[in-house]
Amino acid sequence: MAKVTDIHTANERRLGEIIGTNIAGKLHTGRSRNDQVATDMRMWLRDELNLIEEYLVDLLKVIAQRAEQDIDYIMPSYTHLQSAQPIRWSHWLLSYATAFQNDLERLRFTKKNVNKLPLGCGAVAGNAFGIDRVQMAKELGFEGLILNSMSAVGDRDFVVEVLQCAATISSHLSRWSEDLIIYSSLEFGYVKLADAYTTGSSLMPQKKNSDSLELLRGKSGRIFGAMAGLMMTIKGLPSTYNKDLQESLQPMLDTVKTLKDSLQIAARSLATATVYPDKMRAALSPDMLATDLAEYLVRKGKLCSLQLYSLSADTSAGVPFRETHHLAGRIVALGEDEKKGINELTIEQFKSVDKRFGDDVLSVFDYERSVELKSTTGGTSRSAVLEQLEALKKTWALE
Amino acid sequence: MAKVTDIHTANERRLGEIIGTNIAGKLHTGRSRNDQVATDMRMWLRDELNLIEEYLVDLLKVIAQRAEQDIDYIMPSYTHLQSAQPIRWSHWLLSYATAFQNDLERLRFTKKNVNKLPLGCGAVAGNAFGIDRVQMAKELGFEGLILNSMSAVGDRDFVVEVLQCAATISSHLSRWSEDLIIYSSLEFGYVKLADAYTTGSSLMPQKKNSDSLELLRGKSGRIFGAMAGLMMTIKGLPSTYNKDLQESLQPMLDTVKTLKDSLQIAARSLATATVYPDKMRAALSPDMLATDLAEYLVRKGKLCSLQLYSLSADTSAGVPFRETHHLAGRIVALGEDEKKGINELTIEQFKSVDKRFGDDVLSVFDYERSVELKSTTGGTSRSAVLEQLEALKKTWALE
Amino acid sequence: MAKVTDIHTANERRLGEIIGTNIAGKLHTGRSRNDQVATDMRMWLRDELNLIEEYLVDLLKVIAQRAEQDIDYIMPSYTHLQSAQPIRWSHWLLSYATAFQNDLERLRFTKKNVNKLPLGCGAVAGNAFGIDRVQMAKELGFEGLILNSMSAVGDRDFVVEVLQCAATISSHLSRWSEDLIIYSSLEFGYVKLADAYTTGSSLMPQKKNSDSLELLRGKSGRIFGAMAGLMMTIKGLPSTYNKDLQESLQPMLDTVKTLKDSLQIAARSLATATVYPDKMRAALSPDMLATDLAEYLVRKGKLCSLQLYSLSADTSAGVPFRETHHLAGRIVALGEDEKKGINELTIEQFKSVDKRFGDDVLSVFDYERSVELKSTTGGTSRSAVLEQLEALKKTWALE
Amino acid sequence: MAKVTDIHTANERRLGEIIGTNIAGKLHTGRSRNDQVATDMRMWLRDELNLIEEYLVDLLKVIAQRAEQDIDYIMPSYTHLQSAQPIRWSHWLLSYATAFQNDLERLRFTKKNVNKLPLGCGAVAGNAFGIDRVQMAKELGFEGLILNSMSAVGDRDFVVEVLQCAATISSHLSRWSEDLIIYSSLEFGYVKLADAYTTGSSLMPQKKNSDSLELLRGKSGRIFGAMAGLMMTIKGLPSTYNKDLQESLQPMLDTVKTLKDSLQIAARSLATATVYPDKMRAALSPDMLATDLAEYLVRKGKLCSLQLYSLSADTSAGVPFRETHHLAGRIVALGEDEKKGINELTIEQFKSVDKRFGDDVLSVFDYERSVELKSTTGGTSRSAVLEQLEALKKTWALE
Repeated sequence: MAKVTDIHTANERRLGEIIGTNIAGKLHTGRSRNDQVATDMRMWLRDELNLIEEYLVDLLKVIAQRAEQDIDYIMPSYTHLQSAQPIRWSHWLLSYATAFQNDLERLRFTKKNVNKLPLGCGAVAGNAFGIDRVQMAKELGFEGLILNSMSAVGDRDFVVEVLQCAATISSHLSRWSEDLIIYSSLEFGYVKLADAYTTGSSLMPQKKNSDSLELLRGKSGRIFGAMAGLMMTIKGLPSTYNKDLQESLQPMLDTVKTLKDSLQIAARSLATATVYPDKMRAALSPDMLATDLAEYLVRKGKLCSLQLYSLSADTSAGVPFRETHHLAGRIVALGEDEKKGINELTIEQFKSVDKRFGDDVLSVFDYERSVELKSTTGGTSRSAVLEQLEALKKTWALE
Repeated sequence: MAKVTDIHTANERRLGEIIGTNIAGKLHTGRSRNDQVATDMRMWLRDELNLIEEYLVDLLKVIAQRAEQDIDYIMPSYTHLQSAQPIRWSHWLLSYATAFQNDLERLRFTKKNVNKLPLGCGAVAGNAFGIDRVQMAKELGFEGLILNSMSAVGDRDFVVEVLQCAATISSHLSRWSEDLIIYSSLEFGYVKLADAYTTGSSLMPQKKNSDSLELLRGKSGRIFGAMAGLMMTIKGLPSTYNKDLQESLQPMLDTVKTLKDSLQIAARSLATATVYPDKMRAALSPDMLATDLAEYLVRKGKLCSLQLYSLSADTSAGVPFRETHHLAGRIVALGEDEKKGINELTIEQFKSVDKRFGDDVLSVFDYERSVELKSTTGGTSRSAVLEQLEALKKTWALE
Repeated sequence: MAKVTDIHTANERRLGEIIGTNIAGKLHTGRSRNDQVATDMRMWLRDELNLIEEYLVDLLKVIAQRAEQDIDYIMPSYTHLQSAQPIRWSHWLLSYATAFQNDLERLRFTKKNVNKLPLGCGAVAGNAFGIDRVQMAKELGFEGLILNSMSAVGDRDFVVEVLQCAATISSHLSRWSEDLIIYSSLEFGYVKLADAYTTGSSLMPQKKNSDSLELLRGKSGRIFGAMAGLMMTIKGLPSTYNKDLQESLQPMLDTVKTLKDSLQIAARSLATATVYPDKMRAALSPDMLATDLAEYLVRKGKLCSLQLYSLSADTSAGVPFRETHHLAGRIVALGEDEKKGINELTIEQFKSVDKRFGDDVLSVFDYERSVELKSTTGGTSRSAVLEQLEALKKTWALE
Repeated sequence: MAKVTDIHTANERRLGEIIGTNIAGKLHTGRSRNDQVATDMRMWLRDELNLIEEYLVDLLKVIAQRAEQDIDYIMPSYTHLQSAQPIRWSHWLLSYATAFQNDLERLRFTKKNVNKLPLGCGAVAGNAFGIDRVQMAKELGFEGLILNSMSAVGDRDFVVEVLQCAATISSHLSRWSEDLIIYSSLEFGYVKLADAYTTGSSLMPQKKNSDSLELLRGKSGRIFGAMAGLMMTIKGLPSTYNKDLQESLQPMLDTVKTLKDSLQIAARSLATATVYPDKMRAALSPDMLATDLAEYLVRKGKLCSLQLYSLSADTSAGVPFRETHHLAGRIVALGEDEKKGINELTIEQFKSVDKRFGDDVLSVFDYERSVELKSTTGGTSRSAVLEQLEALKKTWALE
């Protein structure tokens, strides 16, 4: 009987107890712990990846649902955490959907690489009993064979690839959490998590902390660490199986669990959060329309879009944006000097900066108009946002 | 005229010198440095990825050529750096081809993700001039659009993905180098690099060091560091563009150069190396056939492969491998006691361990026979190795 | 004449041109590139570490200066980015001084490890000419010898240690920048960088972005990557010199430069920033004194500090904090119900929650009083902050 | 009674069950989970660091013991894994002692940074009850206070520093294991681990794998990953406590356990290993004395060591090493041409290369003489090795 030194020999012993050691003893014919463990890991992992895919789609569905429902909310966008131009809240939501959709596509690609059969490769040199590995793959649900026995037993790249993928997903969650943590500060106040996803303070009775988001952000470190650690373990290793590879198990198990939890918590946190459109609206300021002002002047110059972007178009007409950007900057400065919002300047003051400002200039100061003007694919207009939503919904139809 | 603060404004100024500032000033209409730099990086990177793909295929071709030419060389395989079973040198070569083929497939997948157009997304909120981004993508050779402007300007995942891919390729090179460094030690002596890929010692006149391989191994740290650094930079960043993202450039440039160099050096080092089949042969020992001895007994038990692996087969016949493994172990121990190779024991000594050892037992001690017995897909037999070669050659036909 | 293959032989050749090849040719007697390069790196690095130390002290001085000058400014503290209790702005400043002081101490420790002499160890086995390494160390300004020749040539831990130290300093800068980036958002508005440390937008005329801080934050990735890369390179390397170690140079050079720049930019950004105490004051809200309210009740219970913290004291007197925390929580809830600040509730309303609230309860709602009450070492009172300042100033006296 | 949401409130509840909730409820007066958990972690960690220090000293003692006992064994040294010059096996052993001694010194430095008291800093702003933190530190065995409350609760650098230190120790173990794994291959054969530290193969009856060493090497990835992960988690975090910091616990616990196990296994593996001096001796070859040959010629030139290394000495006498290195190289080439060891060339053949080779030239080909000639501090002579041993023994006397 096999001396029990690990799970493989334990399996064999138990099998022996059930069906007799004579038959059980055949379990390892042409097999080795090396190809067995690689097979086990791949089988376990492919099933877990199916779950992760499911949770990722769930998160995308929550994003889509909120983006659809909250499409009228307008908020500041930020670059460098400085308020930039008005956008739809849905546009912010969908910016992360873009990232998660890439993740999904990559996950599906990775799953295929995981689902290749190493069994039938023995310890290192292959199998001497002429087994039919194609049939074996079919019975065990694998999509292909690993064609080299040394590679089959010594390769943990399928784990590395999953961990890299997980680290990227988790990196997205870290940015998403960072945004929401900032947005749920008192100073921003756009969002509040449901009680189930916050905790209080043991000292300060007034506190409500967005703990779930902070954990999501923090877990991105944990998952990255698992990935970095495994890559370190594998680096410079002689080929085929070395015991070092045992260290692929813990990061795999921990990351799969952490990622599954993270995705579910992210989805639930978002689904149950309260959004404050009034706070968003209150945070908009006319300065954020300075670009619209510059673009107003560009249009005044009769420069149509075709002329702007087509290499062959007549580019002689119109006011260059470089100039209008400068003029809009002067308007901003004038507002600061006058201690007024730029929407409160008089027509005369506008004309004093440049006489091409028309009587209709104040029409620029309309946040809805601003987001609607970005109607090009990728922009903030209702139609452009709905276009994103359509594309997103196709994602899970692909399942 | 644009104040020159960076390459974008320098471009605009130079254009102004050539075609006049009035037209040049229109360059930034509806555009921003944010979507421009993302576009530039993606265009540069996709071209470089084509080169990397080319160099990766070159390396695969060198491997294939050597594997074909050296197919008769038999050497020890190693697990745990302890000699295991005999294999073909070509089988070792092709074990890395498996890894590099996966890399190639992944590189092609990654290239598609890189080649999506961010231009036309402005600084953060999109474009207000109704430009046709689909046409723009076509003219600039992109395969698709990024559908959300915030994502377009704030995403450096395409760099992360390339660096992760590069880190995995480089990890393969580190293991490949490690093997070859060990194989080119005096104690192993299987391989010697051409002079162009070695250096001498400033102190020790007799030295010839495999510097190129050590550099390849060392560079895996450099590339990993670039990847880890960028992932750290991106972690927890608020969405859209932040200046932190500037730190994506240096790791991208450095990694692309390092990887291109590494792949070319690897290919040339292998192509020009001398292999010593006699040394390989001399390193084989009868002990490495102990598994063959065990499998000989399994076969004596008339157990055919179908019975072994089919779930439905009659499994009552034959000697269990567990038992034969034990008996082969006793033969090894007997050899040690007798201070003889196990191929030097007498038939009587074999039979003293188990009477099922037949008069033909010494036929087991034939290294060619051993590698040929592993004829299952993935094994070391000539046909199984040629099967790998065929599959490998299809790889670059896919180009 | 030495064939020029690297800087060492180039040095020898040039020396030969100046003093004759006969004498120059003796340069390598008992020496090797291996011990030479290790010596060169250590000499260069110790000088650079002196500069880094200087810049770190400069940063601490700027912090001290601002902390002293701005000591009256009161602002919200944050935990979980949710406003917590009032603190002095100086207290925030000095919280980072604590971190940078630890860095300074560690840097000084690390410098000693760097400044040990490898020269006189040859290529690997030592020197056969009986040279006096103690004298050599003295002449070259080293504080000690490396006592084992194999270690001397194969060790790059001194670089790893410096990079780890740099990564920690840089991590502190990343958190410091993150705080300041958030504080300089429009929504917070506590701080504005001087123009020299911000940049505008090519599209949005109203923008002023805290680019310098974002670069500092981003560089923490770069430095971490250098450290991680070198650690990867070194992992699992056979002992003594391997060419892989060449990869220690680039991360060392890059990190030293990046860190020096970062420290100087941090110091100048802070020294020239404008602080807005009115904005800080406006962000305080009575809720942040809920803990003070709970502690007010504790005191009402006549529980003196000695009793609270001494293991031997009589602990029978006073109201437990657990209970007062609960009561203060009810006051916060009452305020929310009444849509009032808790400082606007009537005495009667307080007493309705618990009759131990006295007529003096409104005295709690005084932010100065709150920060002054934390007079224990480490707290926010003027005296406790000055105590930190005193300790800090001793840091550079130690130089 | 405190609602049980974590260990802190569980403690309070249990205390309440024992001494009454009235007194137990005072536990949190002026305290917070934030300063409590930081205190707990530091107390736990300092104790564990004492254990790690103990195990590190144990490993050093095993190294010292073997180095002393095996001092007569001579083996090849390696650079670039190519055999270089003869050394004592003890010299190899002590090269790692140098690294572990540095680790020990650093561990002791780190322990001091860990052992600083955060308690008495409340949640973020300090303590309002005038407690005596100096007394508290004394009672709890801390060596100092953290002087800023925000730093006290938000700092996990003490964990990072321990993990960096652990990663460096573990990196040393990875190189040490790599050497021993190579040395215990059949091809080298210098070392064999005791059975307790090896495992067999489920397929190959003849195998004995150095599993313990491979695990040590692999664990260096795990520990690095823990460090990298935590550094990622902390990067860019707003100051003070954020829930992300919870992710400092798992890497701390896991690393401490892994490191303690690793050090003990390393010590036991080495203590019980068998060394094969005959194999070492057999691996030496006359080529490895080519440097000695060059140095023989330098000495022939009557160039004494003082002249060589003193800046002021008369350097006009003697044969430059550059020239003798070249001549020794020609001898090596001659040996190769003649298919002889260079010690088998005739005196005439030596003189044919350079007439300064004397009749005593064959005295160079003595491995003992070679290691004894490196008598400078750091070298391989018996006295220089004993000097290292003396220094090493002082290490644990410092305990």
